[in-house]
Amino acid sequence: MSKILRINMDDQSHKWESVPKEYETLAGRAFTSAVVNKEVEPTCHPLREFNKIVISPGLLAGTPAPSSGRLSIGAKSPLTGGIKEANAGGLTGNRLGRLGVRGIIIEGAPPTDTKDWFSIVVGKDSCKIVKTNNYAGIGLYELIGKIWKDYPVKPGIIGCGITGQRLMKCAGVFGNNPENTDPGRYAGRGGLGAVLGSKRIVAVISDPTGGAIPTPKDKARFDKGRTALREALQKHAVTGTLNDDEGNPYGGLKNYGTNILLNILSEGGALPTKGFSSGRFSGAAKISGEAVHELVDKTKAKFGDAAEGRYAHACHPGCVMSCSNVVPYEKTGKAHVSPLEYETVWALGANLNIDSLYDVAEMNRICNDLGLDTIEAGNTLAMFMEGGIIKYGDGAAAIETLKEAYKPNSVIGKIVASGTQSAGEAFGITRIPVVKGQALPAYDPRPIRGIGVTYATTPMGADHTAGYTIAAEVLGIKGTVTDPRDVKKADLSRTFQATTAYLDAVGYCIFIAFAILDIDAGFNGMVDTVNAFLGKEIDVGEYGMAILKNERDFNKRAGFTAADDRLPEFFKTETLPPHNVTFDVTDEELDAVFKGV
Amino acid sequence: MSKILRINMDDQSHKWESVPKEYETLAGRAFTSAVVNKEVEPTCHPLREFNKIVISPGLLAGTPAPSSGRLSIGAKSPLTGGIKEANAGGLTGNRLGRLGVRGIIIEGAPPTDTKDWFSIVVGKDSCKIVKTNNYAGIGLYELIGKIWKDYPVKPGIIGCGITGQRLMKCAGVFGNNPENTDPGRYAGRGGLGAVLGSKRIVAVISDPTGGAIPTPKDKARFDKGRTALREALQKHAVTGTLNDDEGNPYGGLKNYGTNILLNILSEGGALPTKGFSSGRFSGAAKISGEAVHELVDKTKAKFGDAAEGRYAHACHPGCVMSCSNVVPYEKTGKAHVSPLEYETVWALGANLNIDSLYDVAEMNRICNDLGLDTIEAGNTLAMFMEGGIIKYGDGAAAIETLKEAYKPNSVIGKIVASGTQSAGEAFGITRIPVVKGQALPAYDPRPIRGIGVTYATTPMGADHTAGYTIAAEVLGIKGTVTDPRDVKKADLSRTFQATTAYLDAVGYCIFIAFAILDIDAGFNGMVDTVNAFLGKEIDVGEYGMAILKNERDFNKRAGFTAADDRLPEFFKTETLPPHNVTFDVTDEELDAVFKGV
Repeated sequence: MSKILRINMDDQSHKWESVPKEYETLAGRAFTSAVVNKEVEPTCHPLREFNKIVISPGLLAGTPAPSSGRLSIGAKSPLTGGIKEANAGGLTGNRLGRLGVRGIIIEGAPPTDTKDWFSIVVGKDSCKIVKTNNYAGIGLYELIGKIWKDYPVKPGIIGCGITGQRLMKCAGVFGNNPENTDPGRYAGRGGLGAVLGSKRIVAVISDPTGGAIPTPKDKARFDKGRTALREALQKHAVTGTLNDDEGNPYGGLKNYGTNILLNILSEGGALPTKGFSSGRFSGAAKISGEAVHELVDKTKAKFGDAAEGRYAHACHPGCVMSCSNVVPYEKTGKAHVSPLEYETVWALGANLNIDSLYDVAEMNRICNDLGLDTIEAGNTLAMFMEGGIIKYGDGAAAIETLKEAYKPNSVIGKIVASGTQSAGEAFGITRIPVVKGQALPAYDPRPIRGIGVTYATTPMGADHTAGYTIAAEVLGIKGTVTDPRDVKKADLSRTFQATTAYLDAVGYCIFIAFAILDIDAGFNGMVDTVNAFLGKEIDVGEYGMAILKNERDFNKRAGFTAADDRLPEFFKTETLPPHNVTFDVTDEELDAVFKGV
Repeated sequence: MSKILRINMDDQSHKWESVPKEYETLAGRAFTSAVVNKEVEPTCHPLREFNKIVISPGLLAGTPAPSSGRLSIGAKSPLTGGIKEANAGGLTGNRLGRLGVRGIIIEGAPPTDTKDWFSIVVGKDSCKIVKTNNYAGIGLYELIGKIWKDYPVKPGIIGCGITGQRLMKCAGVFGNNPENTDPGRYAGRGGLGAVLGSKRIVAVISDPTGGAIPTPKDKARFDKGRTALREALQKHAVTGTLNDDEGNPYGGLKNYGTNILLNILSEGGALPTKGFSSGRFSGAAKISGEAVHELVDKTKAKFGDAAEGRYAHACHPGCVMSCSNVVPYEKTGKAHVSPLEYETVWALGANLNIDSLYDVAEMNRICNDLGLDTIEAGNTLAMFMEGGIIKYGDGAAAIETLKEAYKPNSVIGKIVASGTQSAGEAFGITRIPVVKGQALPAYDPRPIRGIGVTYATTPMGADHTAGYTIAAEVLGIKGTVTDPRDVKKADLSRTFQATTAYLDAVGYCIFIAFAILDIDAGFNGMVDTVNAFLGKEIDVGEYGMAILKNERDFNKRAGFTAADDRLPEFFKTETLPPHNVTFDVTDEELDAVFKGV
């Protein structure tokens, strides 16, 4: 039986609770959003004692369902002021799933004059809240190394870095890679690392000892479902195997990772470049997924077994898509950073007019070490460039600016970690690419309107993963591409948002979307795994909408209105080359997404 | 006949319009708020082309009614995101009143790549929009000197300094002192200087040539009214003449200026000290109004006629209260800054734990030169101290930090001019004293609940002048002090807010409140002047509420909800020494202020 672990940081006490009936089918994002909406006062300060942070593995985490080990983190966001769920791969989803922990609810905070830092160690039916001052104030690579030494059981680790400990709003919740000390798995968005920091928690360590694979209610149907889903994933051109029958590489994600998108979006004129001033980046090829692939091959050829670079790298146990990578140093073949994702390459590369793969990887490494969300950090650096403090394209200056965040009293360091809106407003910038205070990701909404509708209306603040209409508008579903310029996108965005909420709850990676949208057997297989696991028929769309309703309800009570479901003004007045289009979706269409919800 | 001047900065064109019927009785804040609510899209970006800035002299400006020459500036605020009106003394109210200008509406903006700066020169039935690049990028003392040389007609001058030109959110709209080059008259709050800057306007110059004293509809009643009001002002202990019949000084404002309050509030335990952590400041006496008075007397004795320091200084022609001052340098007797107000002394003194009168005056001078609101700047500096970047009490460090704002690319300079919320959030501070993004002034709301109700509920963001319940809660009305601890203050705050809105419209300084609340003949005199001027009976409360309704309507459409009518959480959880009280007013009481409005 799953249980809920409730931790009170006022006095570092804890208790185990059974899962109440109303939460029986809820896990992952469904669980975190339900708990946050029910238990957190929406107008509370997000970085003080009344906020709570909720950790919940996806429903299927720890099971052999393919690519199902995601972990959700939820809280009131210090970046948006609204409800937040961010999820990631890594080890902790798997570990908590096998330990039978449905969720961890962390409430309260030590007195404000507390100097101590704590870590939470969760085991089979056990919890210890330990003083770990030696874990605080250090880089995350070093931290994970220490924890792996202190807990030599390959624990799942999540936590916050220096920036979260200092309550900076770009701080994400890191997770560890399955096999090395790279803190590269990020529930990055919304500043949730700062919420952990406000509770004086550095790390949550999940010791897998004594855990067991969760048992589905209907094992036969579950196994049939996961097999069908795995086959669909392996068959699909985006998520499939490394080589086709004739030995030609295909399987876009395995070869090029998510960064396969960089050249595609740039060619399509929708890659936000130089602070959302162009849709095409002349330096795209140099930092693309293809360039990473080539670098990995080159260092493998040169350094043989000593080479640490790779593509087709899995971010959590049981992932069959393996879209992650390890980017090597060209000169030594050793690991530089893992993973280097499309969003990161965009935020720290094209968005800053930087075309050096090394510089981008280096900034990614620094972000990982500091505990920063790369999307928010990249957009924040763009504000430094927009404000003329450093120059667009100057990688060395961007790296130095980012490094300032190590210093406890550096004003530059604080600003660079404080988020795009804070920095942009402080610098007098009037084209700040944020919705609900959260920075836009790597798809310009002017040429691709559906993703703009998602950015504007998701309760999460600008977020592509909240309703990834790109799948329909750029990549196509069943061979048909939805016209990206069409301005009627409320229905498309709503459908994607609801389905995504479902996926974020059951623990599947959203990249299974390509295969389940294109291959009916894959979709049915996915549904079978969930319903067989629960022993109950649940509807994908209804389940997803119920999550969104909780989130909208919280935001409404926090003071959000339709005025918050809008893109920044400049997207409506400044045209984007090369297609020279603006964001022409009406307010009415935006409001139609959640009409009556 | 009054006219409206409409300026379009898209192409620097202008036209004169007659005052439409619906605006016939509206001037000052009533005019600016009506125009902003009617013409500005509430969700527009405050620092881009769709915002408008509206300038309007109070109804009686330019007439001989005592202390009636205030000038209102209105726009959507870049600091609060809501509607804003800020008003000040100085020369421009008088000048525009005599030129027959009811209001100036400035709309549009030059193309974003424009490098030019403009000034607007308003004369009798004339307007020129001139390129004045030599006015930009310099300190305001120098600017006013230049303008007085270029326009040797003692023009009214308002405008923005370096910080407004750089779109910083602490930037106020300065006005010139009547007789020197001190840019010390500030419509300071809400970042309206940045709105002027976004229109590429440095200065609005009002040439009085050819102007005339406005004629009341009923001159006899007007004269009777203003005489009664003047007598009440002169008779009252707060606003009265310099010496009583026996030669003892009384008249609090004339002797000690607004800064007479510093010792009173500190004694009462409600002077926010060291970042709102105490209500009593041990260094209060050293920076009090009494200390300024003494310094002026000392330098007068030492330097005779060469001494420039003074108290009982009038901020605009026709003010009989003369609460302003000129603070001298102790060593030379020359003018250091004018005026040094209570709010400024608090923000840059007690709030920062600084007890050096020189340091406080020096920071005031720097703020005046840069075009910064001192309340916002002082609170922003407190965030630097709260964040450990500089130390509480370190005047030299505070001065250096403030001076950074002169440098165009200094990150510290940008932050210090960007407002309390931006700075506080960037620094990870969780006790940021703002409402609707605007910093609190010099009365702690925990021991004095009525002013807290005003801070929370005024459409303006935290602002004591929006509903100065201190008059009732600290100073008393007709000898009776309303218990400051009483938590039922919705009615009190609403009454003060409505009356204030009326005063801000007709052009009277709010300090007449002491005399009109205590002396019925004064109140009736005031009403007589307004109604005689208009030739129409208007009701003080109804007229004021109509203004507030416009403002609330704008804010609602901009996305404000009841969640925005709240004080920061820490006022409800952290007790304030020495009385150790929290802000205990319920949300229901706050919502009762404008229930149904």
